[in-house]
Amino acid sequence: MDKSAFELGRVHQLLEPGPVLLLATAGTQRPNVMTLSWQTMVAFDPPLVACVLSARDFSFAALQRDGECTLNIPGAELASQVVGCGNCSGRDTDKFTAFGLTPRPAERVAAPLIDECDASLECRVVDSGMVARYGMFIVEVVRAWRRGNGPERMLHHAGWGVFRVSEETLRLPSAMR
Amino acid sequence: MDKSAFELGRVHQLLEPGPVLLLATAGTQRPNVMTLSWQTMVAFDPPLVACVLSARDFSFAALQRDGECTLNIPGAELASQVVGCGNCSGRDTDKFTAFGLTPRPAERVAAPLIDECDASLECRVVDSGMVARYGMFIVEVVRAWRRGNGPERMLHHAGWGVFRVSEETLRLPSAMR
Repeated sequence: MDKSAFELGRVHQLLEPGPVLLLATAGTQRPNVMTLSWQTMVAFDPPLVACVLSARDFSFAALQRDGECTLNIPGAELASQVVGCGNCSGRDTDKFTAFGLTPRPAERVAAPLIDECDASLECRVVDSGMVARYGMFIVEVVRAWRRGNGPERMLHHAGWGVFRVSEETLRLPSAMR
Repeated sequence: MDKSAFELGRVHQLLEPGPVLLLATAGTQRPNVMTLSWQTMVAFDPPLVACVLSARDFSFAALQRDGECTLNIPGAELASQVVGCGNCSGRDTDKFTAFGLTPRPAERVAAPLIDECDASLECRVVDSGMVARYGMFIVEVVRAWRRGNGPERMLHHAGWGVFRVSEETLRLPSAMR
């Protein structure tokens, strides 16, 4: 794998901008992947992330059962795969095969890393208390991987196939972590 | 006011891309505003948003007390104000005056709308159950305002003064709401 591990204290720099994510689970038959835009950082150390899934998502049951997932950050060049993964279900589709995504073994969780994504986070569910009410899983990032400084261009879902694409274009003096 | 009300069913199109927000509260002495990047959509109808604040934020107590706020979406041209609001406290600074922001009366909440932001959402706290553990307030958007299609260019905080700037640049066929 050509990604390097990076400090957990820098995970928020990737997730805070609100990119669309590919959430991968190990599954019982084959790994699955879903598109996720409803997530936020919740704590810095250790990095906790709130992920909101619909109970209709095939990945919902997998995440409840496995208690593990990876959060993968696709670059803008993966837009068609992101849309593809969001418009079908793992119930009847092997999405890794259908969309040409490559599962790679993670280090601390059974869920796979998605090789085509420039950043991947290994996560464990640490609080399921808001799952029944909001479909919200609190996950802890336990290992983080990144290829270079990627993704340079991030995708941000704005509904119905519209995406904003972001790049790092502004640097101001600031003490906001 | 030159903003128009828009449907609550379209609020997710503004929040889902993960822009940095300016959260305004009415306060007891004067209105206050803070910079917020830790939020996610939680439900579509009515639109519910999870906002994670630090108990150290001056706005934390105001939001607990008032149970109301506005979420204002700054365009990229407001970057210096966004950084300014994030690097000082309402305890000792009148941020509206200090950063040249204009409070306008909202319709359904006491917290002000920030005129310079092209989109503003009036919100009420509907669930404080996760405040003690995570600083997470679940707010319901009860009224939504937008100037044209703005903001065209959104700010996404990547830590320590680095911002990604996003524009709507991709449109793909998709059934993902």
